[in-house]
Amino acid sequence: MSRIAYVNGRYVPLRLASVNVEDRGYQFADGVYEVCEVRDGRLVDMPRHFARLRRSLSELRIKAPMSEQALQMVMREVVSRNRLHYGIAYLQITRGVARRDHGFPPGDVKPAVVITARSLNYARNQQQAADGIAVVTVPETRWARVDIKSVSLLPNVLARQVARDQGAYEAWFVNDRGLVTEGASCNAWIVTQDGRILTRHADHAILSGITRAVLFDILQALQLKFEERPFTVDEAQAAAEAFITSATQIVMPVIRIDGKAVADGKPGPVSKRLRDEFHRFSHFST
Amino acid sequence: MSRIAYVNGRYVPLRLASVNVEDRGYQFADGVYEVCEVRDGRLVDMPRHFARLRRSLSELRIKAPMSEQALQMVMREVVSRNRLHYGIAYLQITRGVARRDHGFPPGDVKPAVVITARSLNYARNQQQAADGIAVVTVPETRWARVDIKSVSLLPNVLARQVARDQGAYEAWFVNDRGLVTEGASCNAWIVTQDGRILTRHADHAILSGITRAVLFDILQALQLKFEERPFTVDEAQAAAEAFITSATQIVMPVIRIDGKAVADGKPGPVSKRLRDEFHRFSHFST
Repeated sequence: MSRIAYVNGRYVPLRLASVNVEDRGYQFADGVYEVCEVRDGRLVDMPRHFARLRRSLSELRIKAPMSEQALQMVMREVVSRNRLHYGIAYLQITRGVARRDHGFPPGDVKPAVVITARSLNYARNQQQAADGIAVVTVPETRWARVDIKSVSLLPNVLARQVARDQGAYEAWFVNDRGLVTEGASCNAWIVTQDGRILTRHADHAILSGITRAVLFDILQALQLKFEERPFTVDEAQAAAEAFITSATQIVMPVIRIDGKAVADGKPGPVSKRLRDEFHRFSHFST
Repeated sequence: MSRIAYVNGRYVPLRLASVNVEDRGYQFADGVYEVCEVRDGRLVDMPRHFARLRRSLSELRIKAPMSEQALQMVMREVVSRNRLHYGIAYLQITRGVARRDHGFPPGDVKPAVVITARSLNYARNQQQAADGIAVVTVPETRWARVDIKSVSLLPNVLARQVARDQGAYEAWFVNDRGLVTEGASCNAWIVTQDGRILTRHADHAILSGITRAVLFDILQALQLKFEERPFTVDEAQAAAEAFITSATQIVMPVIRIDGKAVADGKPGPVSKRLRDEFHRFSHFST
């Protein structure tokens, strides 16, 4: 079955889904996005994704193209038309089409909306979680507002490719103070030898992940010790466990950092447990 | 007359010129561009633009979509089909269309090519140069590789909008050491009270402008004193003259910085002379 996308009011086959070359998303990366997990055909944690979307749009002064209710309805429709059981839905909103000029176009330009969906291989994802992944570290090179979930992702692309070139799955950014900020498309976590779970606090230097936020709820419910503070690469390599979180990976164990095994080089019990518990705590759209 | 664009092998009316929603330029800002001045229907300084384009593509490991000769031919054709006398030609090359995934897609993905052209108002541009422009300064927030002319331009968009919100024309980025790097879409220059012409040296922190490079040739030919070094906002406000350079603005005098007049608040003789001399030194494609 060919994939179906929603583009500016129409449902079209993905290969025909197109935007104008002067869409500001294409010429300026002037847009925002969200990626939501789809599980059993239902969208996961939509209220939180939409809260973040609202904030991203507001930070860039892009007006909402339609009501959130309408947007969510379209997302569900895209999931349904793609007969998606397990996978992700992707939503992108840009400032719209206007003659190329850096400053914002006049107020009557309509924001552009694109929604796509695609299935993921559940078994492969589970196998990857059972095996764990390798990460490499790269210098933090990004702009000062990565807390806005914009499509200005070129440094993330290059970081991910560095990882792949080195046979790893993901890259972690490390700032000039030697502290891990986050991954190319995930938040970074460790479990210390004395059982504390750490991830960097959310400011302008990381994207405040939805999976990250849900995990805080879980940690609280399970009465596990956790702390929002930065950690170094050395700390991560010496940790009992490491893992990443994202809407597509949920909780994915990290077993190697820059070629060095974390603990015994196998996924640890905390990561496994958090992954298993996750969907008991996440919100499902009906 | 409706504008004509070239998109992946076809010449189409601009309103119908479109790219797939999974073009990596749209989802990841994974592409590069060039803007060339068109004067008397001819493209200006193409050898230098193409040398920089080659470098940008190489830094991002995007393969050239066709020979440079062929690309230049298409650009000339777009200029011709738009009956463009005075204006700009815009070239964008992205990594192409692939299922969304941060890392580079398999090697057989074809880079996407978009070329557009549009006229500028010569008289208005000349009037602006006669009047001079105001700039404001904003914190340098961009990523570490702005020397690559990528479409990852969101910080530049926001900076330009700050300028506009404050009634100025352009924004200059200032780094955490108080030094001006460059403008949102131009290089920044000053002329000191003792007649030295300054602009920041080109490293990873600025885009090495084509107009900037041509200007060095002119400064040498005219035996004017110049230096490639950074300057502070204070130095700029206390300067004899200030100006910006870009392919669209050529040499544009700056008469106000953060609300403070530069010298007597009128365009100075050096800026005027360099603007007048410019096209004696630039290369015209035939």
